Amino acid sequence: MKLDDFIDKIFSKYKGRKFRIQFWNGVKRTYGTEDTDRFFTIIFKTKDALRKIIFKGSKGFGEAYMNRDIEIEGDLADCVSLTSEPYFKLFRPTFREKLKYLKLFLQNRNTLRGSKRNIHSHYDLGNDFYKLWLDKNMQYTCAYFDYPEQGLDDAQLNKMEYICRKLEFKTGETVLETGSGWGGFAIYAAKKYGVKIKSYNISHEQVVCAKEWAKKEGLTDKVEFIEDDYRNAEGVYDKFVSIGMLEHVGLDNYQTFSDIIFKHLKDKGLGLIHSITRLYPEPTDSFTATYIFPGALIPALSEIIPVLEKNRFTIVDIDNLRLHYARTLYFWRENFEKNIEKVGNMFDDRFIRMWRVYLSGAMTSFSDGPMTLSQILITRGKLNNVRLNRRAFYDEKYKDPHWNYWT
Amino acid sequence: MKLDDFIDKIFSKYKGRKFRIQFWNGVKRTYGTEDTDRFFTIIFKTKDALRKIIFKGSKGFGEAYMNRDIEIEGDLADCVSLTSEPYFKLFRPTFREKLKYLKLFLQNRNTLRGSKRNIHSHYDLGNDFYKLWLDKNMQYTCAYFDYPEQGLDDAQLNKMEYICRKLEFKTGETVLETGSGWGGFAIYAAKKYGVKIKSYNISHEQVVCAKEWAKKEGLTDKVEFIEDDYRNAEGVYDKFVSIGMLEHVGLDNYQTFSDIIFKHLKDKGLGLIHSITRLYPEPTDSFTATYIFPGALIPALSEIIPVLEKNRFTIVDIDNLRLHYARTLYFWRENFEKNIEKVGNMFDDRFIRMWRVYLSGAMTSFSDGPMTLSQILITRGKLNNVRLNRRAFYDEKYKDPHWNYWT
Repeated sequence: MKLDDFIDKIFSKYKGRKFRIQFWNGVKRTYGTEDTDRFFTIIFKTKDALRKIIFKGSKGFGEAYMNRDIEIEGDLADCVSLTSEPYFKLFRPTFREKLKYLKLFLQNRNTLRGSKRNIHSHYDLGNDFYKLWLDKNMQYTCAYFDYPEQGLDDAQLNKMEYICRKLEFKTGETVLETGSGWGGFAIYAAKKYGVKIKSYNISHEQVVCAKEWAKKEGLTDKVEFIEDDYRNAEGVYDKFVSIGMLEHVGLDNYQTFSDIIFKHLKDKGLGLIHSITRLYPEPTDSFTATYIFPGALIPALSEIIPVLEKNRFTIVDIDNLRLHYARTLYFWRENFEKNIEKVGNMFDDRFIRMWRVYLSGAMTSFSDGPMTLSQILITRGKLNNVRLNRRAFYDEKYKDPHWNYWT
Repeated sequence: MKLDDFIDKIFSKYKGRKFRIQFWNGVKRTYGTEDTDRFFTIIFKTKDALRKIIFKGSKGFGEAYMNRDIEIEGDLADCVSLTSEPYFKLFRPTFREKLKYLKLFLQNRNTLRGSKRNIHSHYDLGNDFYKLWLDKNMQYTCAYFDYPEQGLDDAQLNKMEYICRKLEFKTGETVLETGSGWGGFAIYAAKKYGVKIKSYNISHEQVVCAKEWAKKEGLTDKVEFIEDDYRNAEGVYDKFVSIGMLEHVGLDNYQTFSDIIFKHLKDKGLGLIHSITRLYPEPTDSFTATYIFPGALIPALSEIIPVLEKNRFTIVDIDNLRLHYARTLYFWRENFEKNIEKVGNMFDDRFIRMWRVYLSGAMTSFSDGPMTLSQILITRGKLNNVRLNRRAFYDEKYKDPHWNYWT
């Protein structure tokens, strides 16, 4: 059977939302049964492009798109999101591809040196590039929206404020942060809550930017950015925070990560881990692992909770913000396209198309796919002087009563 | 070395809060270094009582107390709570005791018949007994307090309201409840939110009481109580709720429990599991397993999350109410003691002392020991028409905006 007939046969049974395939010979066919406003056409310019997707899964799709062997009429995100449906599981990498993936995985393991290389390849692409599409405070993590139409700048401020409230920051408290990004959170917390933050990061470009920023704000007495691995952290702190770093830690280091929190957080101290999580454990898809985040792995809660339990942390609160992340990525994608000319002055066409697949795929993985975003609030041991409820997370004016027994 | 000298030697190194031992020969010794208002004296009337505690752990302590071989001057809870400190781990059951425990565990497994027997032994002690010390709405689960001094009746109403809000109940929706207790929650939800609830329970006494109550309220068209195992549930529902039943399900049935939710909850439906959880996995202590809750096991989150992930549930929210449970138990204990004469007309001295150990031990296990209380909110698959945040859990008037993308 010819490849196009084979595909035709498979998708003639497909019952999801409608889409169209334009084959290399010009033939167009529409599949699916459900009318939606997410209709798109995928144009295969060569037969080889389709073959690549069948054999290599998401990596094959990404490469075909990067090489302009496929084009999408309609929204790339709608095309990518379709592949997260169970029906598309039939496109599975071959054994040979799996071996290549395993090799990649071993190459990119998060040893002290491996992490440095993995982080460098993504976060050191140039601060000017990230400035083009992130918010004013350079937050490269999930924002937190008050209402669906809120702008990104405000939502990122909300996110920082929300975390500060959960951690009940008080003036003079010491905080350990692992993964500082460009320094936005540490600077916000020091400025508004007067905490003293020590923040570790191995992205050279980010640390340079963060240090300059702290200097400009006159906060160098409160905020210290250290270009070093979280595993080399020193000191004991009142609070711990890590926003969007666990994704880069790797499965074999989760216990180390938890041990580091335990070691550096004082007894009965509060800590917060903000991380992308998955609905269930699965390796990183091959496109992302190859082109976007080498060495990264998104944990399922079932992979994090046990390591925290080993250290007898109390899990106080787990908050799922996955649609906030879908919305955040909507803005990043929009900003990226608005500045596409400037991006074009920095990178080639292949990079631009690679980044499009990344942002579109990430956005829909939160709305339709297997990704969620968890904020996990913990205490080291049992802290009994805690709030009765979480109302104060939402209203600064509400001075929530604390328990006054058992303290 | 003599037994009292041996104990003296061990506890002379103990650095925690002060307590006193009065030995069988009349000698009194004080141990510990920390002055607190939780001082107590444990009086050993016989050497054998001490030996039993050393060899049999919590079961030995309970039996010695039940048999009046030990007495406590001060608060029994303060004595019991001390044993949850790491220092007391040296009192470990012998191998022979562990074999006995294993036998007990196997005898009390939660097969359909085993569950019936296990539940009968605790919940069918007589509704009149439970009426003596529970709140007006007969809630035998963790209450939810608005402020530390709030009364139990109000706090139990709060708990029911809190769960209804989390589940976003709307008039006419169908709800599956597993474990109805005396029917309080189903009746509350049907009355206030107009939902149609089907509730399963294998405690005969409770179901009889629940049915009468529903009749008296004129709610028999909305609330149906069924005396049957949750594994025999039928139908598909908009919502699922289980309050304080997972504790009786048993480790080997957690996946079945999750599968039952998956089977009977409609796609994108909301579900809530309210259960005692532990900071880390460990078997039920021998006193509780023998005398109070045969067949019960308190899960750690690391034991529940994976079975939920297998069914691809989205974990929307995990809320830890452990100090609310400590406070709830404070009231139960107080009410129990207030009604001690009436209890004495129903049960013998040994039962009363057994119940004292149970309530005191449970209270302090939430405040100082390994217990927590988790409310786990889930959706079956990805529900995108959800609230932006959890503010509406706390304020009925706050009509929290829902996401309007991706629906």
